[in-house]
Amino acid sequence: MDLESIQNPQFLKKYTNEELEALAFDIRQFLIEKLSIRGGHIASNLGVVELTLTLHKLFNSPKDKFLWDVGHQAYVHKILTGRADQFDTLRQYKGLCGFPKRSESEHDVWEAGHSSTSLSAAMGMAIARDLKGTDEHIIPIIGDGALTGGMALEALDHIGHEQKNMIIILNDNKMSIAPNVGALNNMLGRLRTAGKYHKVKEDLEYLMKKIPAFGGRLAAAAERIKDTVKYLLVSGVFFEELGITYLGPVDGHNFEDLASHLRYAKKSKGPVLVHVLTQKGKGYKPAEADAVGSWHGAGPYKIESGAFIKPVQSAPSYSQVVGDTLTELAKKDEKIVVVSPAMVVGSKLQGFQKAFPDRLFDVGIAEQHATTLAAGLATQDMKPVVSIYSTFMQRAYDQIVHDVCRQNLDVLFTVDRSGLVGADGETHQGVFDIAFLRSIPNMSIMMGKDEKELRDMVVTALDKPRGPVSIRLPRGNGLGVSMDEAPESIPFGTWEVLRRGQDMAILSFGPLLQNALEAAKQLQTVGISARVINARFIKPMDEAMLEELAHESIPVITIEEGVLKGGFGSGVLEYFHGAGHHHMNVDCMGIPDRFIEHGAVKELLKEVGLTTDEIILRAKKLLPKTTQERALK
Amino acid sequence: MDLESIQNPQFLKKYTNEELEALAFDIRQFLIEKLSIRGGHIASNLGVVELTLTLHKLFNSPKDKFLWDVGHQAYVHKILTGRADQFDTLRQYKGLCGFPKRSESEHDVWEAGHSSTSLSAAMGMAIARDLKGTDEHIIPIIGDGALTGGMALEALDHIGHEQKNMIIILNDNKMSIAPNVGALNNMLGRLRTAGKYHKVKEDLEYLMKKIPAFGGRLAAAAERIKDTVKYLLVSGVFFEELGITYLGPVDGHNFEDLASHLRYAKKSKGPVLVHVLTQKGKGYKPAEADAVGSWHGAGPYKIESGAFIKPVQSAPSYSQVVGDTLTELAKKDEKIVVVSPAMVVGSKLQGFQKAFPDRLFDVGIAEQHATTLAAGLATQDMKPVVSIYSTFMQRAYDQIVHDVCRQNLDVLFTVDRSGLVGADGETHQGVFDIAFLRSIPNMSIMMGKDEKELRDMVVTALDKPRGPVSIRLPRGNGLGVSMDEAPESIPFGTWEVLRRGQDMAILSFGPLLQNALEAAKQLQTVGISARVINARFIKPMDEAMLEELAHESIPVITIEEGVLKGGFGSGVLEYFHGAGHHHMNVDCMGIPDRFIEHGAVKELLKEVGLTTDEIILRAKKLLPKTTQERALK
Repeated sequence: MDLESIQNPQFLKKYTNEELEALAFDIRQFLIEKLSIRGGHIASNLGVVELTLTLHKLFNSPKDKFLWDVGHQAYVHKILTGRADQFDTLRQYKGLCGFPKRSESEHDVWEAGHSSTSLSAAMGMAIARDLKGTDEHIIPIIGDGALTGGMALEALDHIGHEQKNMIIILNDNKMSIAPNVGALNNMLGRLRTAGKYHKVKEDLEYLMKKIPAFGGRLAAAAERIKDTVKYLLVSGVFFEELGITYLGPVDGHNFEDLASHLRYAKKSKGPVLVHVLTQKGKGYKPAEADAVGSWHGAGPYKIESGAFIKPVQSAPSYSQVVGDTLTELAKKDEKIVVVSPAMVVGSKLQGFQKAFPDRLFDVGIAEQHATTLAAGLATQDMKPVVSIYSTFMQRAYDQIVHDVCRQNLDVLFTVDRSGLVGADGETHQGVFDIAFLRSIPNMSIMMGKDEKELRDMVVTALDKPRGPVSIRLPRGNGLGVSMDEAPESIPFGTWEVLRRGQDMAILSFGPLLQNALEAAKQLQTVGISARVINARFIKPMDEAMLEELAHESIPVITIEEGVLKGGFGSGVLEYFHGAGHHHMNVDCMGIPDRFIEHGAVKELLKEVGLTTDEIILRAKKLLPKTTQERALK
Repeated sequence: MDLESIQNPQFLKKYTNEELEALAFDIRQFLIEKLSIRGGHIASNLGVVELTLTLHKLFNSPKDKFLWDVGHQAYVHKILTGRADQFDTLRQYKGLCGFPKRSESEHDVWEAGHSSTSLSAAMGMAIARDLKGTDEHIIPIIGDGALTGGMALEALDHIGHEQKNMIIILNDNKMSIAPNVGALNNMLGRLRTAGKYHKVKEDLEYLMKKIPAFGGRLAAAAERIKDTVKYLLVSGVFFEELGITYLGPVDGHNFEDLASHLRYAKKSKGPVLVHVLTQKGKGYKPAEADAVGSWHGAGPYKIESGAFIKPVQSAPSYSQVVGDTLTELAKKDEKIVVVSPAMVVGSKLQGFQKAFPDRLFDVGIAEQHATTLAAGLATQDMKPVVSIYSTFMQRAYDQIVHDVCRQNLDVLFTVDRSGLVGADGETHQGVFDIAFLRSIPNMSIMMGKDEKELRDMVVTALDKPRGPVSIRLPRGNGLGVSMDEAPESIPFGTWEVLRRGQDMAILSFGPLLQNALEAAKQLQTVGISARVINARFIKPMDEAMLEELAHESIPVITIEEGVLKGGFGSGVLEYFHGAGHHHMNVDCMGIPDRFIEHGAVKELLKEVGLTTDEIILRAKKLLPKTTQERALK
């Protein structure tokens, strides 16, 4: 079938299972082919082909509402709702979004990117429906990994209590991004196999056949036991205890099984959970074999072999540098313990995990718990490191304030994917952390100019008690600088002059320093001498150096890959005005006050004006007239 | 017994149950008496007298670690650890903290104020213990209300999985601050009564007596059923399913019952949950009768009658104004729906709840769910209002960013207890919200100068789609202004000149405007003419008015009851520098970069320098020399 001709999912209504099978095959081929060129979340989408087809066949989107939790598994849904023709632009700048997007289609009724939000949103929609008196079905589709996120459990608590109609699809592929951990997962494992339950169910049926003969009190007692046992054992007691009807487990790759359960769910009253077992990467051998790591968010690959086509990278990734450094340090310091909320692979902690299996704790998608767990460790004189993505750190804001910083505990956060992240887009940009961390008392924030300085920062943070520290690191690979020298501690709170200059100063940190240095070089050619300062401590700032600038009264440009409102630049303004240096000309460059969509980081930097050219323009504009005239010559 | 003579809990070791009863009586008398004078969390502390005594008798604090979840129920613990003599200063400035405080005692091993953190912290301590090879007991004490907080559920998931030794005390008083809601609570309710389970247990025993006679397969089947049913029914299946041994329910006011269960727990391996039933307010009739509302965090009262001694207040509280306004508006607009995370009483929503029981959703302590639930409602064209305290809004930071603001949904947050809150202290100060909200795209933030403007703001936010809006309101009572005029909408994003003046401008909002006006009045007497501007829109700011100031080139003072870093003042600096007005003298007044402890709001404002006198000082200093000289004359 020509998938690009699909306008909407109506045609599925009269499809037979055979036709569905054929279409599922075509969709898989399409996905494997399209994603081989530019990459994408292939494994999770291959896993939900039959599920998505069945949902669109049995329900009426957009009247009925599908809420894709996390959202990276909505490719099949996008194909069936008329967007196959845009897959060449998937996750590209101005192209098709890798997640549901309300502006793309009326069938995308809820956007996500972070996990565990769908149940709460679905509950909101169910309440709205009942207040309005309409009758649409509300269908959140949530993975087993996302279910352990605290807010999903908060939502289950409310859903079970209110008893509104809702069909929760538990898409159980036995892993989130990494293999799942946790007691809930163990519980699901028991449901998956259900061996124990089946045995007892058999016993029960045998018993029931025999008992009636005895009659009287014995039969009545047996009947009551049967009801209770059935209720508790056969039907997903955990969910039933919360007031949610459990259906399943269902083979998520069997159209008949799926349809019969979903039809039943459609007729049910109150909240129903359909436990669907799917296989990540289904139908593409390389992805089936390793759906956890590289095939979760995959880069381009060769279809035949499943070999990834990687650009040659000599430099290690920033994540790898942190992982390796922690492993090295942990050999000498047994107090170092690492906590990861389901990001062991993404944050390159496999080496640490292998070397110290009892000192790495993967807590699943549970950023709040991860943070306060670390706080608990720190009260006992351990040195906990929370390895977390900037965007997911947002989930732990209160725990950082209330548990870590308020108690001034020695917890190190290595803040991965800080700054713009590219193809994942607006749900994943790591652009808020400076603004939200900087205002919390006791928190220190650093970012290295390259992978070597990043390593030194990890050493600095762990060599003695520092209180709460956040070390930001960007997505992707380092600059390729030499790592031969032994790592060493950096004097706390000090900045570094990377290039001397008298006319003005450029303050920045992280990869953007390269743009600043290049701008300074070009400014030199027109006679402007710009100092470039590596403001590696975002907090506390190097006040001695700021005082020098105030004394020299030269214009200052601040540059950061983070939001302008409340960012590092604001910190510089606060310092100057707070110290009474009201005369300083300061121009702050950073991310404007809107969400930044997906695209290559380079394109996004251009969009928000964080380029060498823009720095040069702004520098010339900021300088006093006399210097500007010199530059124009 | 003279409680003030207690140095540490060692003396309890050889206490008989009779002696414990007598001591419990003395402690209750002490609490009822002491708290009658200045107030405090009386109901929850009266509920845990026997539990705390038993814990300190059977375990060895501080080696064994008690983690008091939320922390407001630690008064008895404070008495037993040598702090009875400080109760006259409880919750007073520089006095005994109302929550556990590590700097107060080695017995306070974990601080809290927000709920649901104890399990994660306990897990951190258990990991540290096992890595070090020591053998202390880790004992989190968590309420049934706190258990529904998402992070507590995340922690249970991890605790059940890791199987480390830990004794979780579930202090079940059938309510958090308000009566509990939610499916977990329903489940606990079934455990409390356990009627159904007991009946089936009886049936089972009867059956077992009869069956053996039949022998063979029937007996074997029955035996297997018995084991499973016993496992599932008799022992708290929800927790057992998570891998946590359930013990209980235990009568929390019976020393024998408490001791026998806790002794058993002490010997158990792996995580154990002891389900203790307690009564809030136990032993003091007025508090027993209404432990939910006024007796949760109580003010001073007459011991005999239980009547509260309230200062005469003519003005309504800000919370009441919001509650009443929402109720009024909801009569005409059926799209208005209110979501409260367990704060119906605190935020004065009982009126709304009574008028529209199906349009108010109390979701329990679940701020994340509350926020995304509102986002879901907003996608369906409803007008959800999330009524939330500033400090608890921190829990929903990511949901505000990712679900509400990123999708630009029309959700109104009424941010109660904004600014300094007083006696609850550093865990509860509402001082971060401006900094963390201001940096999120699409979010608008307002604060009214008095209760009338607050009402107008609620009307403004709901009269047409505004995207996400936060309206801040302080704790306590309004100014007493007339509310006779009909409420009306305020032009969005506009400020208001409250007092004309040419020499300088003071920008502020909320109650602090009173200090600003008073300062301006006093400055006038020394010949300085200060303009006072009601910067009621913290975001978006009134740029036309800022441009005027820039044009006039007069010095500007900003004043806010929030953190300086990233606050409103920084926004003003960002605006001036962003618009190229580098010449502006701006002095920002606000909360410095440290946590502010408990005390009366007035004392705290003095401590941080947010007083009329300080404004006058700073104003004089900021003015140009010429104006300063005029002022000195």
